[in-house]
Amino acid sequence: MSEAYTRAGVNIETAARTKKLIAKLARATFGPQVLSGVGFFGGLFEFQGYQQPVLVSSVDGVGTKLKIASALAKHDTIGVDLVNHCVNDILTCGAAPLFFLDYIAMGRLVPERIEAIAQGLARACGEAGCALIGGETAEMPGLYAGEDYDLVGFIVGVVEKENIIQGKLIAPGDSIIGLASSGLHTNGYSLVRKVFGETGEALSGYYPELGRTLGEALLEPHHSYCRELKPLLPLVKGLAHITGGGLIDNVPRILPQGLTARFDSRSWAVPPLFRLIQERGSISRLEMYRVFNMGIGMVVVCSPENVSELTGALPEAKIIGEVVKQQGGAGVVTISP
Amino acid sequence: MSEAYTRAGVNIETAARTKKLIAKLARATFGPQVLSGVGFFGGLFEFQGYQQPVLVSSVDGVGTKLKIASALAKHDTIGVDLVNHCVNDILTCGAAPLFFLDYIAMGRLVPERIEAIAQGLARACGEAGCALIGGETAEMPGLYAGEDYDLVGFIVGVVEKENIIQGKLIAPGDSIIGLASSGLHTNGYSLVRKVFGETGEALSGYYPELGRTLGEALLEPHHSYCRELKPLLPLVKGLAHITGGGLIDNVPRILPQGLTARFDSRSWAVPPLFRLIQERGSISRLEMYRVFNMGIGMVVVCSPENVSELTGALPEAKIIGEVVKQQGGAGVVTISP
Repeated sequence: MSEAYTRAGVNIETAARTKKLIAKLARATFGPQVLSGVGFFGGLFEFQGYQQPVLVSSVDGVGTKLKIASALAKHDTIGVDLVNHCVNDILTCGAAPLFFLDYIAMGRLVPERIEAIAQGLARACGEAGCALIGGETAEMPGLYAGEDYDLVGFIVGVVEKENIIQGKLIAPGDSIIGLASSGLHTNGYSLVRKVFGETGEALSGYYPELGRTLGEALLEPHHSYCRELKPLLPLVKGLAHITGGGLIDNVPRILPQGLTARFDSRSWAVPPLFRLIQERGSISRLEMYRVFNMGIGMVVVCSPENVSELTGALPEAKIIGEVVKQQGGAGVVTISP
Repeated sequence: MSEAYTRAGVNIETAARTKKLIAKLARATFGPQVLSGVGFFGGLFEFQGYQQPVLVSSVDGVGTKLKIASALAKHDTIGVDLVNHCVNDILTCGAAPLFFLDYIAMGRLVPERIEAIAQGLARACGEAGCALIGGETAEMPGLYAGEDYDLVGFIVGVVEKENIIQGKLIAPGDSIIGLASSGLHTNGYSLVRKVFGETGEALSGYYPELGRTLGEALLEPHHSYCRELKPLLPLVKGLAHITGGGLIDNVPRILPQGLTARFDSRSWAVPPLFRLIQERGSISRLEMYRVFNMGIGMVVVCSPENVSELTGALPEAKIIGEVVKQQGGAGVVTISP
C-alpha cells in the first residue's frame, strides 16, 4: 500500500506487526490499575490509596552498552538494564515504581529484535511490579546506521510525601554502606569499547579472571536494588545510584552542603572486570573511579546505629566510608588509600 | 581530569555544563508542585486535589524532522514539536499535562545546541502549564554520526476517571470535526527528505505557493490543541491526534468495533505544502492520506447536536466527515471523492 514510504525506508506494516509483538508482552505486566489497552494515544493508570502522593519520575538510556549487545547479537537483556537503571533511580527518593514507557529507535525496524528487547523490558517490569504501559518504536532511516538502535526508558513511581528520601538528614559521622554492582551496569561502555574494540572477536575472548568471555561479563544486566532495599527504607537517610560519574560524582548529589564523603578503598574488593579494564587501557585510578562504579552499584547512607540492622539484612553490603565535614575550600570526595 | 574518557569521546565536564544550561530553563517551568531541583536522581511532583485521578502518559519522538532542523541549523523549535506532540497525545484521553521529561542523545555534546533545543522544550512546557521536571542528555560516540541527534519526550498528565475520553460512546451518525494542522507536524519527514533531498540548498528554495522557503514550511512547529480544546472537552466523545498513519490509521484507534469513518475530502482545503510534496514525489493520493495529516491535525468526534457549539468556539474547525457502520467485511475508512 505505502509504496513510496517504503522506498523512503519506513515500513508502516512492519511497524504494525512490531506493535502487536510488544503489546502481548506488555499486557502481561498490567495490573487492575491499567485502564487502557496498548495502542491508545496515552497509557491510563488509575491512581489511588495514597495520603500525600508525590510522583517520582526519571528518564534514562543504556548508553553504548547497546553496541555490545549488537556485537554479540544478544538483545534480550538490554531491556532489563534499562528498567533496572530507572527503578534504581527513583528508588533513591524512596519511590516504588508504578509504570514504565520505552522508546526504541532503529534505522530499519527488525520485529524479532524489538521483540527480544521488549522481552527484557517486560521481564524486569514484571519483577519490579511496574506496568509496561506504553512505548514508541520509531523507524528513522538515515539517523541510525546498519544494525544500530537507541533505547530509552521513562519511569514513574510514587512515594508518600513524609517518606521522601532526599539526604537532608545526613550528618557528619553517618555511615556509608556499599551494595555490590553486578558488573558495569550501564556506564563506561564508550571507554571500554575504546580499550578493547567492539568486534565480536574481541568480545568473545575468554578471560580466566572473569571466568567467562569479555562480552558475557560486559553484558551482565544492571542489578535492581528495589526488592532488597524496599523493606529497609525507613532506616535509610540517603541513597545514591552509582552511574556515570561513579562514586565521586554521584554520592555528593545527595549530601547536604558542607558535607563530603570519605571512602576506604580497602573496604571492598574491586571486581576483576574493572582491574582488567584499567590495566589494558592504562587508565588512571582517579579516572576509573569517576567513570565506573568499581563494584559498588548503590550507596546507602545511614546513622551509625542502623548499620548493623542494614548489613544484617543485606549480606553482601559493606561499610565503605563515612560522611565528613568539608575541610578548607571546595571539598571533594576522597578515596583512600 | 578524565583524559582517557575524553579520548573515548565522552566529556564529563561538557556534560556538567550542559546540565546547568538546561536546569536554568527547566526551573522557569516549575510550579509549587515540583519538590525537587534539577539534577536529583528523580523528579518529584506533588500530586493532590483529585477525586479519582487517572494518570495518562505518552512517549514520543519527532522522527526525522530532526534532520531538517540540522540541515537548517535551527534547533529552537524542535523542542516545541516534541512537547506539543506529547501534549496532544494525552489530550485525546481528556488529560491535562502535569510534567514532562526529555532525552537528548548526540554523538558529541554541543552545549549551545542542547540549550537551543531546551529553550523550545521549556517554552512549550510553559505554554502547556507543564513542568519540565527532568531529562537526560547522553553522549554516544559511534551511535550518532556527525551533527545527528535524537530527541525523545515523555509526558504525564491527569484526568478524573469519570472524565476520561476513550471514544466508547461514539455512535453511527456522530460528526467528525477537523482542526487544522500547522504543517506536517512531526510525521512524514523521511518521505519528504526522499522527495526533495535534505541539503541546505534544496531546503532554502523559495516556493511562491508556500510564501516562504521549503525548509521554513517544513520546520513549522507542531500545533498544540490543548488550550483551545480544554474548555470544550465535556462536549467531545472522541479525539484522535493525526500522526503517522494519517486520518486513515489514527481515527479508527478511537472508534468502537463495527464503526468506521467516512470523510468528505471537499470539506477542507489540503494546504499547498502537501500538494507540492504529492506532485514532486508522484505519490498516490491514498498514500498521501496515510503518511501525512493533509491539513487536519486533530479530529474531534461529537454528537450532531454539539457541532454548532464546538464549531462556534473553534473558528477554524470544519465538519469533515461522519461516523458510519462498517459495511460487509473489514470496514475501512473512506475518503471521498
